Amino acid sequence: MPRRDWGPGEEGNLIGHSMVGEMDSDKQDVPFFTKLFTLAQILGILSIVLIGVWGGVFRGGFAWTSDPGLQFNWHPFLMVFGMIFLYANGALIYRGFRFEKKKKLKLLHMFTMLGSFVCSVVGLVAVFDSHNYAKPNPIPNMYSLHSWMGLATVLLFCFQWMSGLVTFLLPGLRPSMRSAYLPVHQFFGLFIFVSGIATALVGITEKTLFSIMKTYSSLPSEAILINFSGITLILFGALVVYLATNPKFRRLTTEDEVLLTDTVLE
Amino acid sequence: MPRRDWGPGEEGNLIGHSMVGEMDSDKQDVPFFTKLFTLAQILGILSIVLIGVWGGVFRGGFAWTSDPGLQFNWHPFLMVFGMIFLYANGALIYRGFRFEKKKKLKLLHMFTMLGSFVCSVVGLVAVFDSHNYAKPNPIPNMYSLHSWMGLATVLLFCFQWMSGLVTFLLPGLRPSMRSAYLPVHQFFGLFIFVSGIATALVGITEKTLFSIMKTYSSLPSEAILINFSGITLILFGALVVYLATNPKFRRLTTEDEVLLTDTVLE
Repeated sequence: MPRRDWGPGEEGNLIGHSMVGEMDSDKQDVPFFTKLFTLAQILGILSIVLIGVWGGVFRGGFAWTSDPGLQFNWHPFLMVFGMIFLYANGALIYRGFRFEKKKKLKLLHMFTMLGSFVCSVVGLVAVFDSHNYAKPNPIPNMYSLHSWMGLATVLLFCFQWMSGLVTFLLPGLRPSMRSAYLPVHQFFGLFIFVSGIATALVGITEKTLFSIMKTYSSLPSEAILINFSGITLILFGALVVYLATNPKFRRLTTEDEVLLTDTVLE
Repeated sequence: MPRRDWGPGEEGNLIGHSMVGEMDSDKQDVPFFTKLFTLAQILGILSIVLIGVWGGVFRGGFAWTSDPGLQFNWHPFLMVFGMIFLYANGALIYRGFRFEKKKKLKLLHMFTMLGSFVCSVVGLVAVFDSHNYAKPNPIPNMYSLHSWMGLATVLLFCFQWMSGLVTFLLPGLRPSMRSAYLPVHQFFGLFIFVSGIATALVGITEKTLFSIMKTYSSLPSEAILINFSGITLILFGALVVYLATNPKFRRLTTEDEVLLTDTVLE
């Protein structure tokens, strides 16, 4: 399918893009995207495995309300899997599946983000339950910087998802309104993602000091695993933001999308 | 001075920009920039004040090697002042002083970043000293996720400063090389900034749990101050990244810079 670039604002990268698709700085580089995208997937899966091993091997495994101490372990796992890994893949859908129809990608983006949101909510239930049902005494909720950051991030995510649905998927909104909201949606999308990673790093540190403060400085294998989880999350986050913002990686509008003007925003 | 937009890649925003200066999405909005820039300065100064009050009032004040416990307090203060506040202002110089000559702005950018780097190094000396001279026993260095993140960030910063100097200020490099490196410099510039903030949030949590773990959950005034420091740093960071990446806020090349082609990159 022949492709050409489309006007500003409708789609693509965070910051707006050039009108002239052939300009050097915007020349598409799909093979380089594919390499970095693959590396990002490896780092993302590695993060999930590291956090899973932390909970499953070093912190006693996973349970639900039957054991509040082990129910907690679902919290970091679901947050890294849902709020970070799934979310990143939802954000990169337009670039990763660039040859699919826009409408299909929008639905896939919406459903991936919904999956990410559901994981985050279940992850929140896990931590509240593990606090509320802790024995002999319940553990207080929502006092730490981590909890404030996390709740703000999930609330923003909820608002972002609903605004995206109303603006881009439900019918009725004028194309000019959609175009105006798109950069806002993209900026907050990446802000929520980066906040999610920052919240995870703070949370990892919190749980580490609650669990192994005395031995942390002698770097037992658990401490090394924890530190590498954090570093992996940072590298994953940086790569995803790069993939999502580089204009060389943006999906170009197809010829028929351009001819059927309405469908550019559909 | 009349202004026009210049071709892609030489300057401006992180992601590349349009050739057509009059396009709606790239229309410059200086008054809005000024409002957000002022808000960013207020949040930045508030962060410094909050971290200063934490060290000065709640953590016993500031000292140098005479009292390792108090010497530590210079660490968060210098990192927030130098690595975050000064660094942000260094990053925003081209947009904040848009009517000055490019050459002057480059020097100002370089010296502000040098100031930021010096603060960061003194901030590192403070924490290493406070560990090494702690009584009765020295405190181990470089074991925590915070320390790994922080050292990596400062090393990247050092490399970034030197690469910028060699590429953009020292003579000799071809304009095509400078143009090619600029988006890399801008991406890593913001990555270092965001990493600095994430490292600060992790560090704040670490110090809080080392100091007031038992009382943190009852939210004494120190805990509230700590949480608000973190939230202020996040809002400051988000605003600075927005100001640095929005194409509506980029400095446009002046007419005489365009006529004297060389000076666009000088």
